[in-house]
Amino acid sequence: MTNNSIKKIGVLTSGGDAPGMNAALRAVVRACKYYNISSIGIRQGYEGLIQNDMIDLGPRSVKNIINQGGTILKTARSEEFRTKEGRQKAYDNLLQNEIDALVIIGGDGSFTGANIFHQEFNVPFIGVPGTIDNDIFGTDFTIGYDTALNTVTEAIDKLRDTATSHDRVFFVEVMGRDAGFIALNSGIASGAQDILIPEQKDSVEELCESLERSEETGKKSSIVVIAEGEQLGGVYEIAKEVKKRHPEYDIRVTVLGHIQRGGSPSCHDRVLASRLGIAAVEGLLENKTNLMAGIRSNKIVFTPIEEAIKKHNEIDAELIKVANILAI
Amino acid sequence: MTNNSIKKIGVLTSGGDAPGMNAALRAVVRACKYYNISSIGIRQGYEGLIQNDMIDLGPRSVKNIINQGGTILKTARSEEFRTKEGRQKAYDNLLQNEIDALVIIGGDGSFTGANIFHQEFNVPFIGVPGTIDNDIFGTDFTIGYDTALNTVTEAIDKLRDTATSHDRVFFVEVMGRDAGFIALNSGIASGAQDILIPEQKDSVEELCESLERSEETGKKSSIVVIAEGEQLGGVYEIAKEVKKRHPEYDIRVTVLGHIQRGGSPSCHDRVLASRLGIAAVEGLLENKTNLMAGIRSNKIVFTPIEEAIKKHNEIDAELIKVANILAI
Amino acid sequence: MTNNSIKKIGVLTSGGDAPGMNAALRAVVRACKYYNISSIGIRQGYEGLIQNDMIDLGPRSVKNIINQGGTILKTARSEEFRTKEGRQKAYDNLLQNEIDALVIIGGDGSFTGANIFHQEFNVPFIGVPGTIDNDIFGTDFTIGYDTALNTVTEAIDKLRDTATSHDRVFFVEVMGRDAGFIALNSGIASGAQDILIPEQKDSVEELCESLERSEETGKKSSIVVIAEGEQLGGVYEIAKEVKKRHPEYDIRVTVLGHIQRGGSPSCHDRVLASRLGIAAVEGLLENKTNLMAGIRSNKIVFTPIEEAIKKHNEIDAELIKVANILAI
Amino acid sequence: MTNNSIKKIGVLTSGGDAPGMNAALRAVVRACKYYNISSIGIRQGYEGLIQNDMIDLGPRSVKNIINQGGTILKTARSEEFRTKEGRQKAYDNLLQNEIDALVIIGGDGSFTGANIFHQEFNVPFIGVPGTIDNDIFGTDFTIGYDTALNTVTEAIDKLRDTATSHDRVFFVEVMGRDAGFIALNSGIASGAQDILIPEQKDSVEELCESLERSEETGKKSSIVVIAEGEQLGGVYEIAKEVKKRHPEYDIRVTVLGHIQRGGSPSCHDRVLASRLGIAAVEGLLENKTNLMAGIRSNKIVFTPIEEAIKKHNEIDAELIKVANILAI
Repeated sequence: MTNNSIKKIGVLTSGGDAPGMNAALRAVVRACKYYNISSIGIRQGYEGLIQNDMIDLGPRSVKNIINQGGTILKTARSEEFRTKEGRQKAYDNLLQNEIDALVIIGGDGSFTGANIFHQEFNVPFIGVPGTIDNDIFGTDFTIGYDTALNTVTEAIDKLRDTATSHDRVFFVEVMGRDAGFIALNSGIASGAQDILIPEQKDSVEELCESLERSEETGKKSSIVVIAEGEQLGGVYEIAKEVKKRHPEYDIRVTVLGHIQRGGSPSCHDRVLASRLGIAAVEGLLENKTNLMAGIRSNKIVFTPIEEAIKKHNEIDAELIKVANILAI
Repeated sequence: MTNNSIKKIGVLTSGGDAPGMNAALRAVVRACKYYNISSIGIRQGYEGLIQNDMIDLGPRSVKNIINQGGTILKTARSEEFRTKEGRQKAYDNLLQNEIDALVIIGGDGSFTGANIFHQEFNVPFIGVPGTIDNDIFGTDFTIGYDTALNTVTEAIDKLRDTATSHDRVFFVEVMGRDAGFIALNSGIASGAQDILIPEQKDSVEELCESLERSEETGKKSSIVVIAEGEQLGGVYEIAKEVKKRHPEYDIRVTVLGHIQRGGSPSCHDRVLASRLGIAAVEGLLENKTNLMAGIRSNKIVFTPIEEAIKKHNEIDAELIKVANILAI
Repeated sequence: MTNNSIKKIGVLTSGGDAPGMNAALRAVVRACKYYNISSIGIRQGYEGLIQNDMIDLGPRSVKNIINQGGTILKTARSEEFRTKEGRQKAYDNLLQNEIDALVIIGGDGSFTGANIFHQEFNVPFIGVPGTIDNDIFGTDFTIGYDTALNTVTEAIDKLRDTATSHDRVFFVEVMGRDAGFIALNSGIASGAQDILIPEQKDSVEELCESLERSEETGKKSSIVVIAEGEQLGGVYEIAKEVKKRHPEYDIRVTVLGHIQRGGSPSCHDRVLASRLGIAAVEGLLENKTNLMAGIRSNKIVFTPIEEAIKKHNEIDAELIKVANILAI
Repeated sequence: MTNNSIKKIGVLTSGGDAPGMNAALRAVVRACKYYNISSIGIRQGYEGLIQNDMIDLGPRSVKNIINQGGTILKTARSEEFRTKEGRQKAYDNLLQNEIDALVIIGGDGSFTGANIFHQEFNVPFIGVPGTIDNDIFGTDFTIGYDTALNTVTEAIDKLRDTATSHDRVFFVEVMGRDAGFIALNSGIASGAQDILIPEQKDSVEELCESLERSEETGKKSSIVVIAEGEQLGGVYEIAKEVKKRHPEYDIRVTVLGHIQRGGSPSCHDRVLASRLGIAAVEGLLENKTNLMAGIRSNKIVFTPIEEAIKKHNEIDAELIKVANILAI
């Protein structure tokens, strides 16, 4: 790696926070040190680029953060970065701080911003997929996804104690506006009777049939996991509709909400984030740009950023079948 | 302990489930064995007494349940037990099963039922306080309370990751319709800026002042913990009112809900439940009745059941002051 | 799937227990139901086959076990199954119970036994890789591995609190007699200064150099993660040798031991186990045999059992480099 | 509280670290602010007093530490503070930093040091009991004890998965050199067959009898919890002796070690630490000195430091009986 042109890398976290973002940041900073270049942290995502809110980072600045949820650089949505003027300010600050390249830790919205910025000002960048939703093309796992799955699964384990003790039906809403990965996997892991995801057309009738079948086989309590983005009008509406058809069901609704975004990252997320953070720095030093670093089949791969933004990981039909078989 | 009249004890769990109920049940069953009497489990609370839904229990029937949330006997609310006829059926089933005394694991509603039943049919019973709310007089801690506190505290720790990363204000609703114990203690433990409980008159103005003070001292994110039973109209209403006054706040609402009732009990709850379950059996064998077994200053104490029902543990003024000092 | 010859599948867990074995068992039983065949559980691994210790299993027999560590079928090492006579008894019992095929949940020792049994008696079987060590060829992950990684990582997080507070060096031994997967991944995830694994030649000198470098960069405490199977004589011996060279170090040794095998499985392990259990049944119904079901690049794959036994997953050089970069 | 003489309080953590020390520190600092006095943190326990290693602390310096194990001030044993010269240096530094009084967070060794220092130089101080061992007189609970109990209980839950799956006997060593509180309570909570503590004379014969009784009742696996300080020669020796008498037992030994000291504090420990930290500051402002702040029957109490050092909480005979009844 003998790219002499990159002497300083700026790193920021953008979009919704995800467990493991700190681990990725730490890896970026230590990889910079390893390859004898400087690193600087940009606070509040693109907003910090515009406001010139930055901090020099060395290997010791990122100690004891690998196990922390959230992001010490903070994150924010920046309206100003959506304007040409905002991006010009950002570029001026990059020049002023002698930043030669960027590592963008975030989701597809963040990558879109970086891509436009690159087209206008030709700033090299590599994206690192940090989002619990796992909906980014070009990587088998996004950073934070595994931790969120465990958080959801542990929460539903708790709900099941009550569901079983009271013979209740619990409808649990989990995150996932556009993607059902969290719902489908946590649903399988927590023995859900049914799972509703945005990628599938479901109906209240089918849901009721599933619950009825479940009753017939002797199950007295059930968990139904519902992704935010399912298409039947929301968890409360669904509960109401089922209650109409089955007034005898003792139904409870739980919206897991923001606890899914936080928490100390799992081992898997820490290792993934560490690998991708290093890969991003190495990629930039090899003159790569406009790419996202990801993991596929346990190998580092780089995907053109536009592909990462436009394409989407698809729900595997096998998993849906698994869910059905297990709900028997 | 030479009471020859009690040869068989029936045990049931009633009301909302709480972590540690299984540990209490296990202790009742093993204490019976230890004192050479029989034990029988009554399913679904008082409903099982009426339906004659019972199961013989021995020391091995309760193995590997000390660490499980919920209750293997299940719990239910029984409308029929509120009627004279229902209680007559229950009594007939007691006679038929040769049950000489009852251990009632539950909250004050369950104790009220037992008390009426005793007045009518003179069945000896001792109550064991199992509820996460800690609102029962006669014991320093109810079974499940400590576990619920840890569940809430860990959940808010996760929310704080996001609150800090995004500079947000989180309003978190926790359980406690009549009592603020969970809110006050978990609020202190999770560094809440303000805590709203049923026992105190609060106003949106005071809450806003607290948040403003917090901002002035340089805090950029805040957690506000709100008990279900506070008197300002609910967490969503409060959030709306604060947003009106401070449109610049980035506010999020989380209702923790039923996850607070479940989960593997903490060490404290398992030991407490074990002690109280044994104490209940020993009490019955010593001809005690109409009492609740509790712990005060780490000693077993028995409180007349009517006192346990009517009186309430009061929030300690010291704790409220602690919360205020820490929010500085 | 129209194989009429298989009407009943026997399932057993063998070798060391691993979190997720119950989830795999549950999936086998429910898949059998789904495909309208019978399933029977064999207790204590091959020993139960010899002792005819079996239990009929239906979909409700395996309820509420997906979240439990260990294996409800129990596991044991069977000396008798290593003899021809033992295997003859096992075969007789298979015939007597009308078992047409086996699902073997375990590690390579268990697969070797199944393979010999198949050669002698032509009993169709498919293996499901259940072991925390992740050292089985033919799958990206073994069942239990992800949970063990989280257990180790959380334990080292706790040790780090003390290491940091006291400026100490902790030497932590983790499982892995032949494979360094647990050590390498948990070491990266917990910010270890050095990681010793069986696959690499290490020396006390290199370890000391790493610790000295760490000191020079200002680190005051360090974690060294050591796999059971490293080649320097064991964690106590290594600690002694380092202490000789650096009497000023405040060194502590912790052997994590068997806590690594237990615990409620992670979401990842539950889903993996569910998929593989179903795949095993489907494979048998498609007349597959002598194979191991695994996951590669998130797809179900079947590997000839002899390959699964003989080959081994290799440590990725990239991960070793990641560990070195992060320890800077 | 109108003591004008105290304008600045120094706070240090000393002895072994315990979860909740940071929460206590945070409370001290915020209480100082609340009462309009200054606070200064002394690093590395008494060593920092001697080395003049101190740091000014304000309310924001202690943000986001309430949930962290260990102590951000670090802790150390100071040989020099045991000498008159060392203590003279410490006193000189107190004067130089205008520290009027001390809060000592630690165990009885730390309190002994403070007591001697006070006798020599008349520096007001109040102790806060921070140790996982719960062996300090004058408080129902020490800071860190509840968290350690949960850590041990969760670890043994994991061991039980393997014990049950393999029909094994596990001997688990837990912390407690002089006191059996951790062993006794975690043993009860994890369903131990026997518990060996320093306060009781036990014999290998009695232990074997207990294990034999357990077998006779149909238990196939057992957990024995052993405090570090039991009097039979250590967990490995005990295991050897039992194995001699029962070669058929499949015995495993686990030494839980330092994981017991770390981890995020439980809700109980955070609230306890917060209350005691505030009480210590309020005590000093009321001219109290040479006392330890503690909780008894849920009320703040102050105990003369010499009493706190010399007396010891005793194991409750009721708990020992509880353990015996449950092991039936």
